[in-house]
This record gives sequence, structure tokens and C-alpha cells, in this order.
Amino acid sequence: MEAKDEEDVSLGTNRFPERQPLGTAAQTEERDYKEPPLAPLFEVAELKSWSFYRAGIAEFVATFLFLYITILTVMGVVSSKSKCSTVGIQGIAWAFGGMIFALVYCTAGISGGHINPAVTFGLFLARKLSLTRALYYIVMQCLGAICGAGVVKGFKKSIYMANGGGANFVNPGYTKGDGLGAEIIGTFVLVYTVFSATDAKRSARDSHVPMLAPLPIGFAVFLVHLATIPITGTGINPARSLGAAIIYNGAHAWDDQWIFWVGPFIGAALAALYHQVVIRALPFKRKP
Amino acid sequence: MEAKDEEDVSLGTNRFPERQPLGTAAQTEERDYKEPPLAPLFEVAELKSWSFYRAGIAEFVATFLFLYITILTVMGVVSSKSKCSTVGIQGIAWAFGGMIFALVYCTAGISGGHINPAVTFGLFLARKLSLTRALYYIVMQCLGAICGAGVVKGFKKSIYMANGGGANFVNPGYTKGDGLGAEIIGTFVLVYTVFSATDAKRSARDSHVPMLAPLPIGFAVFLVHLATIPITGTGINPARSLGAAIIYNGAHAWDDQWIFWVGPFIGAALAALYHQVVIRALPFKRKP
Amino acid sequence: MEAKDEEDVSLGTNRFPERQPLGTAAQTEERDYKEPPLAPLFEVAELKSWSFYRAGIAEFVATFLFLYITILTVMGVVSSKSKCSTVGIQGIAWAFGGMIFALVYCTAGISGGHINPAVTFGLFLARKLSLTRALYYIVMQCLGAICGAGVVKGFKKSIYMANGGGANFVNPGYTKGDGLGAEIIGTFVLVYTVFSATDAKRSARDSHVPMLAPLPIGFAVFLVHLATIPITGTGINPARSLGAAIIYNGAHAWDDQWIFWVGPFIGAALAALYHQVVIRALPFKRKP
Amino acid sequence: MEAKDEEDVSLGTNRFPERQPLGTAAQTEERDYKEPPLAPLFEVAELKSWSFYRAGIAEFVATFLFLYITILTVMGVVSSKSKCSTVGIQGIAWAFGGMIFALVYCTAGISGGHINPAVTFGLFLARKLSLTRALYYIVMQCLGAICGAGVVKGFKKSIYMANGGGANFVNPGYTKGDGLGAEIIGTFVLVYTVFSATDAKRSARDSHVPMLAPLPIGFAVFLVHLATIPITGTGINPARSLGAAIIYNGAHAWDDQWIFWVGPFIGAALAALYHQVVIRALPFKRKP
Repeated sequence: MEAKDEEDVSLGTNRFPERQPLGTAAQTEERDYKEPPLAPLFEVAELKSWSFYRAGIAEFVATFLFLYITILTVMGVVSSKSKCSTVGIQGIAWAFGGMIFALVYCTAGISGGHINPAVTFGLFLARKLSLTRALYYIVMQCLGAICGAGVVKGFKKSIYMANGGGANFVNPGYTKGDGLGAEIIGTFVLVYTVFSATDAKRSARDSHVPMLAPLPIGFAVFLVHLATIPITGTGINPARSLGAAIIYNGAHAWDDQWIFWVGPFIGAALAALYHQVVIRALPFKRKP
Repeated sequence: MEAKDEEDVSLGTNRFPERQPLGTAAQTEERDYKEPPLAPLFEVAELKSWSFYRAGIAEFVATFLFLYITILTVMGVVSSKSKCSTVGIQGIAWAFGGMIFALVYCTAGISGGHINPAVTFGLFLARKLSLTRALYYIVMQCLGAICGAGVVKGFKKSIYMANGGGANFVNPGYTKGDGLGAEIIGTFVLVYTVFSATDAKRSARDSHVPMLAPLPIGFAVFLVHLATIPITGTGINPARSLGAAIIYNGAHAWDDQWIFWVGPFIGAALAALYHQVVIRALPFKRKP
Repeated sequence: MEAKDEEDVSLGTNRFPERQPLGTAAQTEERDYKEPPLAPLFEVAELKSWSFYRAGIAEFVATFLFLYITILTVMGVVSSKSKCSTVGIQGIAWAFGGMIFALVYCTAGISGGHINPAVTFGLFLARKLSLTRALYYIVMQCLGAICGAGVVKGFKKSIYMANGGGANFVNPGYTKGDGLGAEIIGTFVLVYTVFSATDAKRSARDSHVPMLAPLPIGFAVFLVHLATIPITGTGINPARSLGAAIIYNGAHAWDDQWIFWVGPFIGAALAALYHQVVIRALPFKRKP
Repeated sequence: MEAKDEEDVSLGTNRFPERQPLGTAAQTEERDYKEPPLAPLFEVAELKSWSFYRAGIAEFVATFLFLYITILTVMGVVSSKSKCSTVGIQGIAWAFGGMIFALVYCTAGISGGHINPAVTFGLFLARKLSLTRALYYIVMQCLGAICGAGVVKGFKKSIYMANGGGANFVNPGYTKGDGLGAEIIGTFVLVYTVFSATDAKRSARDSHVPMLAPLPIGFAVFLVHLATIPITGTGINPARSLGAAIIYNGAHAWDDQWIFWVGPFIGAALAALYHQVVIRALPFKRKP
């Protein structure tokens, strides 16, 4: 079985060469990939390895750079009288999505490249990392986000404070429910893409899955920003929302903060549920 | 023969190492890839497998997310007085193309990643899926599209109804024939790209084909939107046009609906014809 | 030797695993890849194969779709009073570059995916295709371009004629010499990228070369448009310039046409010279 | 060991098939990749090889094309009264990032594709190339940059001189310290991405690393431009800043030049430190 699987992997796209090119569905389950075991809730061994602490540092640095570049881009756009002489709202969406692409590319092999508590939460629900690691990542992500937003504030405090500091709010004209819904579905798009990109079975069968992986994840973030910047400024990342709120800490900074935690966590949970139960049908499979 | 083919696959780009790099044409037919058998019109067996129903659910969810993100982006742009303070018309094109990229990436291994009745129709004509499956997919895509547009309307009904609801029309100044032509050629671009990306023979020979596959498909959608938004708002996807029309259901919503079904289906049929007859020359090949 | 080369290919990135990662130079010539033989000037055999005629048809269809999408995008932008309510000049650049990406992806395995007489000319100089094939491709590309522009004119003749029909001119304020220089360097960027993407030696050593190939080629076209649209509207493709000029055929349509043939052909020749003589050092290598 | 490593490479994504998909961290060090030896400071042998001189020529040509396309794009945007009728500030960011993508793609196999003294400096600190080669590259990059900016000035000297010639300054309203900080962090983002893309260990384990490599490097440049164009015009490449300053040589051209050398070199050094010490933990590893 082991040798057979490895052969499949080296064949790349053609595991089901006759009937399942890109345009058609997988019509057989018979050569199903062996599911990896669930991560334990607590794993003492990992606390003793350098790679555990390194992973947290990588999450910190990545989230720091993420907030730094994105909030600086936001400030450049919103502080200008004419949007046409800036990179524009579309440029903001590219900054968020592009940074996630580059940072997932860089840190996927070190920490998994979450850079987002909602992603960590979703993968934890699927038991792909331990509870200890999940909590450690979320703390490091939030610390990184605070520092990243802090550096942007340090450049031009007056501009930063006068323009909302990149913090997330539900925009006037939308209800709290609208904002919560937008965060739930937006995070679903992101976390579902992450699950698709990290699916061991599909990586073995479709060569585009592991090759392109960071790109659709970055695009998912870009696309959700295109759609929901007018509603909430787009959170879908509690560390990003928390970091900007703490550093900004101005009027209304905390009014809707709960939405940017509850929404992403519900969206991530729904994506985990959809991928594990509907797509992979894990609960209905016989134990090996 | 089987072993030989597998070796070719693992060699990646160099099946014809001497004379056929990217810039030159395939000058020999002698090592032609074995054509997969045609899908039957009706296959009872697939109706009994979970993967069949799962594929339909995946098409539903993907089309739901497609309409949700794209129509929300359209609403954000068209409801603003100054296009410069939005992601702009180009941002709308990115939303449509980018979502197709991300969703094809995510669902290619589950359902084939059609997310579009015209794509399903084109692949059915090439007999790459059964009639049962094709009809099932189209129904699920339309249901997903209706739900996606419905959620957008739910956010801000007044804005949604005042701005045309993202429905497709032939714009004033263009004839119905212009609109039909734009839909036919636009869908041809998309479905021809899909056929190129799913060509088993080319996947075996050119390593960029399976690796990048979802990216040019998404770009095809992006590019057609750049060109034809001023003419029809760009359909090239009957489920997208139907979903927006049903949820909008306002003035003129149904005036041109037929164009967004007839056009894409003709375009998809021409693309299937071009790929199967001209490019692959299937009718002229000897039976194995 | 043969078996050894194949092993190298399957190793992907790690042909020189110790010293040549992406950031450092190839420091040895000892395992040089065997150069493919030169294409003959005339090859009677290819005239008898279907793949020869099919390649020409594919070039025709690709250039047709290229002109159709790009000139339609240009018309949508230039015919609007406010550029902000269109996809903008940047959208035009995306249309040209994106179409080349998608079309090279689709036709690379059929005809080599030239879609441009300058590319055909450059590859012919490097003797990667026969003279017969080169001339045949160029004729088919020009025919495709004429038809593509013709369809755009058919949609809205008045708009098409009132806005220059997407034809290339040297813009007021620039000399003919400026225009020629911009076309030469612009085409150099494109054709040098094509040569890099089709380098058999590098494809064997660096896995990113064959995988991504159509993407940097498309980006090269996009980037040259970003830079030189204000100077010439950007040709770097004689078929595109000829097609638009023939269909437009209005005032000044033919004034600068020679620049859009001489410039690209010089640029392509320089790129071929640079790649074959400087990069590959072919004239200094011993005969096998 | 050798054979085992090669097998791992050909397996692509699944070196740790059970526990380390994209979303989770590398939890074991046991199958650590063998580190390549450090490059010597001076290597006489390389001075005798054509590939050494060819690499310098490739750096010259690449930096020439980089400055030509990007400064021409900048001129097109800043010389226009209405940014909306140009490719916009976002288009400038695409020009810089896109050119780095295309040029790294083209020259990675020839010279390593640095095109930037800061990248060369960072890789030299990690001892991935000799001191001789590093200095040679930096000289060639600066010469290429000067020539590239010179050609742009040659097109339209009056426009070039009236619009700052694409030279880098700290914009009014920001302190020198702001500019220096922006250059340091911006270069860190770029050089850290380069290190991630050239990591031999990760290339062996994660198939997306070597395949996509030029793309995230280009995106890093794009993203830093989105964020810091309002502060410094974005240097993060001393050759680019020097070339524009020498050719422009107008008022204030040299006021801040030191920032665009000191900043990028500090940023590159920090990225090298972070990658080699924190991520790879090289100082703590036993000698082989």
C-alpha cells in the first residue's frame, strides 16, 4: 500500500488517467488516500522541540509584516483627498491578499502559514494541530498584529488617528447582523480554500493543489476584500482586527470588535464542518 | 504501453525533448496519448455513490459563493457616486475571474469545478460526463446562484433593487445581436481554455498544463469581463444570469435572459467542436 | 547519457543541489544539456502532416481571440468620457497581457503559442522552426488579427471609427525614433522572456521554468503596455498593429505602420542574439 | 542517503505525508536536509569561467530592463494631469513587482536573478556567493540601472526632468527616520521572501517552493510599493535609487541617497539573520 501510494504521487495528475481530468468528477472512492491521524489535544513532546517555538516566532513575524504592509497601504489611500492619486481601494484589497500569498508561501513549511486565528481555529477543529499549539499561535499572531499596527502609527500618528487606524467597523447603513454575516461567509471562503489546499488526498491526485496552494489562499483574501470592504472594511482575521483596535483605540474602536471574533470563528467552523463532513465524509468512514 | 506512458508523465516537460519546447509545435503524432472512453449517457452506478451527490453539493456551494462575492462587489461599485472610491469596474472583473480561479482550484477534485452550466454543457458534448450528471450539476448551479444573489439582496434590499441587482442586460446602444455575439465569443474563450486545461494528452506532455490549470480558466473569465462589461455586463454563465434575474426580478430583468442561455450554450458547443474536431482530430482517428 | 538526463529531469530543482539554489548562479558547465538540432529551412515532411495545418489554425484562432478581447477592451475605455467608470488604462494592459497568458497556455502544445510574428521571427532566427512554418504562422496570425478587429468594428462601427480603432500610432510629442526605440526594447523584453521560457537546458534544471512558462510571457506583455501605452499605444506584435490598421483604415492609420514591423523584428532579433550568443554561448561550443 | 534524498524530491509534497500538510508545522527535524557548504570569500576558479562573466552581463541587462520599464511607467503616470487617464499609482507598483517576477524567472538560472544589490548583499551574508561575485554583481546592477534610466530620459528629457526622474526621496511630512524605517522593513519583506524561495531544505519538502519561486518575490516588491510609495517612492533596491539619482541629478537628487543604501542593506542583513539563525537555526547545528 505504501509503495503504491508513492507511485501515485509521482504520477502527478494522472492518478485516474481515464476518467477524471480537471473537468470531471472523481467517480470512484476505491483508491482512497489514507487519512492522517488526528493531532492530540496536548502533546508534551512538541513543547521540547525548537521547531515549536520557531513556528510561533514565524507566526509573530508574518503577522507583524502583514499588518505593517496592509495598514500602511490603507493609511496611504484613506488619508489622500483624491483616491485616484493613490493605489485605490483595489490596491488595499491587493495588499491584504498579496501579503497572505507571499507570507503563506514563506511560512507554510515553518508553522503551516496560518497568520490568522480563524485559520488556526478551523484547522484545530479538524484536529490538524494540538490545542497547545493552536493557543500559542493565536497569542503570537495577536502580538505580531499589535506590533505591526504600532509601527504604522509610529510613522505618522496624526494621520493614523485621523483616519481610523485601519480598524474594522460595521459601516453606517449596515446592521450588526449584516456585518456578522459578511464576516462569517467571508471567513468561510478563506478557510474552505485553506482546507482544499491542505487536503492530503487531493494533493496526491491533482498536481495543481500543492503547487499553487499559497496563490488561491491569497486570492481568497483579496476577493473577500473586494466584496466586503464597503460593509465592514473586511476583517476575516481576528488578529488583524484586534491589533488595529488596540493601537488605534479611538472612538468606536471597540464597538464591533466582538463581530470580528465571533464571525470569523463561526465561518471557520462551518468551513471545517463542510470540508470534513460533506467533502471528505470522514464521520462515515470505517476505522482503518 | 502503460508503463511507457507513466514514464512520460514523470518526465514532465520533456516528452519530445529534442524538438518541441514551448515555442515550437508538436511535430509528430506517433506517441499519441490514448483517448479516455466516452462517458455513457446514463450511468446507474454513479447514482448510488456518495461522490455523485457530494459533487452536486460542491457545485451548489461554489456557485453560491461565486454569486455572493461577485454580486456584492458589483453592488459596492455601482451604488457609489464616485467609482474612484470603490474597487472600480476592473475590481468587478477581478472578482468574477478571481472567484472562478479559487473555486476551480477548490472543487476541481470534487466535481470537476464547473460552476457554470455552459462549461457543463460543453464537457457533456465532449462526452466527459453523463447526461444525468450534467442535468444534476446545472440544477445545483442554478440553485446556488439564486441563493448567493439572495443573500446579497438580504444585506441591503434598497441598494440592491436600485442598482439593477447585478442582473445581465444588453446595454443601451447595442443590439440584441451584439449581445448574443459577445456572449458566444466570450463563452468560447472560457470553454476553450477549460478544454485546453483538461486535455489528458497535453497534461502528459506539458507540465504547465495540469499545474496552472485553474489560473488560466480564472483569467479567461477576468478577460472576458474586461472586454464585454460595457456590452452585456458579461454573462458567459447562465446560472449567474438566472440567479441575479430571479432575485432582482425588477424592470427588464427578463428581457434578455434568453441571450444569456443561448449565447453561452452556442459558445460552449463551438469550443467543444473546435477542440475535439480541429485540435484533437478525434473523428479522424482509428478506433483502438 | 540519455538515462542520466532523464534522472536529472525527474529531480526537478536539484540538479546542482549543493551550490545552485535560485539565488545563486550556475557555476559549472560540465553537465551541459545537449542542444536540440537546428530546424531545417524547408521540411517537406511537415507539409504532409495534419499537425502542421492544425498549428496554423490554432495561431489564427488565438490571434483572432487576442484582437477581439483586447480591442474591445480598448474601445470600452477610450469611448468613455470618464476613465474612472471603465476598467482604465491599466485594464487595457491586463487585457493584452492576460490574453497572451491564457492563449500561450492553451496553444503552446499545438503550435508553440506564438500569436505574434515577432515571436515567430525570433524563434526562426534561433532555428527552432522551419522557414515554411514561420511564414505560414505569420500569415495566419495576420489573418486572425484582421478578423478579430473586424468583429469589434462590427459591434459599434461609429464608436470604433471615432476612437482610432485600437490602431497603433506614435503619440504626439514623441518622435518616430522614440516610437521605434520603444518598440525595439519592448519586443526585446517579450522575446527574451519567450526564449528563457523555452530553454531546454533550463527547463531540465529549474522546475519553475516549464511550470510557470505562460505566466511570465503574459506578464512581459502586460508590463510593456504599462510603460509604453503613452508612447505608441504599444505594438510589439506586428499582427496586432496590422489587423487594427486594416480594419480602422482611417486618418493616419498607416503613417507609422512600418515602425510596428521594423521595431518588433529588430527587438526580436536582438533577443535571439542575446539569448543564443551571450546566455547560451552556442557559437563557441564544440560540435557534438 | 543520496538516493533517499532524491526519492524524497521526486515525491514532491509528501515527504512528511502523515502530519505536515500545508496548514500544519514541520514537527520533526530528524530528516533534516543536508546544508550546502558555504561559498568561499574568493574563488579564483570562477574568474576563469564564462558563466561568471555571463552572470554579470545578465544582471546588467536585467537591471537595465527593470529601470527602463519601471521609470517609463512612473513618467507616464506622474506627467499626466489626471491619474485616472494613466495606469495609476497601482500600475507603478505592478510595473516594479511584475518586472522583478519576469526577470527573476528569466535570469534565476543564469546569475541567480538578484537584480538588486540588497539581495546580493543578503545572500552574500549567508555565504551563498563569493565576495568577488557579490561586488561584481553590484557594479553590474548599478551600471544597468544607470543605462536604463538614461534611455527613459532620452525619450523625453523635459518631462523626465520636470517630474523628478523617478528618483527616490523621503516625501515631505515624513522624517528621515521614517524613510529609513520604511526601507529597512520593506527590504526585509523582499529578502526574507528570497531566502524562503531559495531554501534547499524547503524546496525538497514543499513542491510549491521551487515551482512558484519568482512569483512571491515579484509580489513582495509589488506589495512594498503599495505601502511605501507615499513615504519614499519605495527604493528597497540601491541600484534602482542610484541609477535614477545619477541620471536625474536635479534638485535634492542626492539628499536622501544614503537612506536608499543603508536602509536596504540593514533590511537585507536582518532578513539573512532571521532566516539563518531563527528559521534554520544554523549556528546551533552540529558540524557534519
